[in-house]
Amino acid sequence: MRAKAIIARRSPDGVPSADDFSVEDFVVAPLQPGEVLYETLLLSIDPHVRRRLPQAAWLPKPHGDVTAIGEVVVAGTRPPPSPRDAAVVGRVLESRSADFRPGDFVFGGFRWQTLHVDQAAHLHHIQPTPATALVDELGLLGQPGFVAWYGVGLADLQPGEVFVVSSGGGAVGMVAGQLAKRRGARVIGIASGSKVGYVVDELGFDACIDRTREDVTGALDALAPEGVDVYFDNVGGTVTDAVMTRMADFGRVIVCGMASEYNRAEPVTGPPLRPVLRKRLRIQGFVIYDHGHLYPRFRELALRLVADGGLKYRNHIFDGFERAPEALGCLLRGENEGRVVVRVSDEVG
Amino acid sequence: MRAKAIIARRSPDGVPSADDFSVEDFVVAPLQPGEVLYETLLLSIDPHVRRRLPQAAWLPKPHGDVTAIGEVVVAGTRPPPSPRDAAVVGRVLESRSADFRPGDFVFGGFRWQTLHVDQAAHLHHIQPTPATALVDELGLLGQPGFVAWYGVGLADLQPGEVFVVSSGGGAVGMVAGQLAKRRGARVIGIASGSKVGYVVDELGFDACIDRTREDVTGALDALAPEGVDVYFDNVGGTVTDAVMTRMADFGRVIVCGMASEYNRAEPVTGPPLRPVLRKRLRIQGFVIYDHGHLYPRFRELALRLVADGGLKYRNHIFDGFERAPEALGCLLRGENEGRVVVRVSDEVG
Repeated sequence: MRAKAIIARRSPDGVPSADDFSVEDFVVAPLQPGEVLYETLLLSIDPHVRRRLPQAAWLPKPHGDVTAIGEVVVAGTRPPPSPRDAAVVGRVLESRSADFRPGDFVFGGFRWQTLHVDQAAHLHHIQPTPATALVDELGLLGQPGFVAWYGVGLADLQPGEVFVVSSGGGAVGMVAGQLAKRRGARVIGIASGSKVGYVVDELGFDACIDRTREDVTGALDALAPEGVDVYFDNVGGTVTDAVMTRMADFGRVIVCGMASEYNRAEPVTGPPLRPVLRKRLRIQGFVIYDHGHLYPRFRELALRLVADGGLKYRNHIFDGFERAPEALGCLLRGENEGRVVVRVSDEVG
Repeated sequence: MRAKAIIARRSPDGVPSADDFSVEDFVVAPLQPGEVLYETLLLSIDPHVRRRLPQAAWLPKPHGDVTAIGEVVVAGTRPPPSPRDAAVVGRVLESRSADFRPGDFVFGGFRWQTLHVDQAAHLHHIQPTPATALVDELGLLGQPGFVAWYGVGLADLQPGEVFVVSSGGGAVGMVAGQLAKRRGARVIGIASGSKVGYVVDELGFDACIDRTREDVTGALDALAPEGVDVYFDNVGGTVTDAVMTRMADFGRVIVCGMASEYNRAEPVTGPPLRPVLRKRLRIQGFVIYDHGHLYPRFRELALRLVADGGLKYRNHIFDGFERAPEALGCLLRGENEGRVVVRVSDEVG
């Protein structure tokens, strides 16, 4: 049986482009006992894929696997620490395991390819819910939603506090802002393009700063003159430097992602730490892989919020497996409108 | 009655020198009802005095009072939020308050002067202990010791962890390192000059890096190949940038002081935040003024540790009121050997 894979051809310079990759055919090996063959229906496109691409040796290694030049692009860790860390929603074609049958939907996959052979122990069943689509398993109910929920909890957010989320229209930010709103905070997004209006009009954020058109510090001075109590950071870089100057006393900075830095070749400095002392700030990073045991709590809550209309989401779908590099570039340039997913099979919605 | 005061003459360029100040006589006003006249016996010299000196308007204002050009140097906040925040150990000369009598030892004073008139409500009685000297009230049992105790507690330090303290031979660092050691940590100081040997030989630190002679990152690689679990930071700047690159997963950075930055005219950048995410770090600042209610717990513990020989300290005494600027410069250049105190009266030890 033949399949397609996307190969990393070189170390990208900045945001990856299609030229950094090639699409190649490969032949799927026959199944061994305990293995499962499944097809990719949906492929998750995440910022961390960028860090796993070939890069200068001195750059810090990401958590988990990396892509070598000439190899199939790594899309996640293997085996996924939990179903939520899977990069692929697939459907079983053949199985030599009693745990999976042809037609079963599965989470799995950690590389960009259309067919996968893996041990059954590395796969997780998907149990679709009536209120959500299969694609939501990768976003709203997937790792982005889970990350948002965990990060907002870490912030010890109080009603009435000012909550700022960078990449507010992104896969994580959309959920973080809505959860903060449900906790009674005043929510200010930082976003670009159509996402600025979307998060206010559709998701109920109180305001959103367009980072490409507005001065972030000036906008915060107008929107939050008393300062920012919680900054949920998905981007790092200059946006973070700006918000850091506007933190309120006892503010908390939740470091969830560094999307703006994934394309940089040079290490960068960070914001001055002096305000950490003067304003008694807490800056806290986390990696969701450490907290997989909490996923069921999140899922239960999220489904309840979806059911009563209190949690919305949108996905930015690229149709066609070969568009994965294009989708990654769109994501890393911040041009996506919602969670980025490549739809490999036109049978799923 | 005549007294002396030290006046700020200009905004210092870098580390203050004697030329930035003048010593002037003034006449003490007669006491009003409820007021107390007291003499300075010991004057505490703290890094934060530097930030309170005249400085460029755009620099962030410190917590509490500041010194204007032509005014007496501010040495603390007024009234001190707690006895521990006092800058002066004094003795009452005259009193029009029922709460104080001539000869009483008091905490008070928030400016560099030999005599003070203040409302009784702004003063605190000192209750000397048999095991400690009066000078210890400003250091070991004073704000530096209290800050060290609170900061080490904030770090959630576990036995067997690696604890690094910058300015390890300083007023705070001496106590922080010893308390960490008592909690079962492996303690590495960062210091300069004679303090390097002192903290190891006399205070029992496991090691100390001489920041003026050694490369901090290389030394940490040798002393703590598994990384730093807790970094107790008193200095900021390049030392902090170096230690930040050597943090272990789940490390905690307690931002207690920024001594290296108090002399800078320019705002600086900080260390990159990427490791905060990757290593799940927590960076936490605190201001001890928020936690004054905990002082009695600290004092009780500290006296117990002093009694059993488990907590040592040394002071760097400058004799003579007029040497206060010299003492401040010595402190800010890191040349002091222990807690810096100006002894104004030769009657106290």
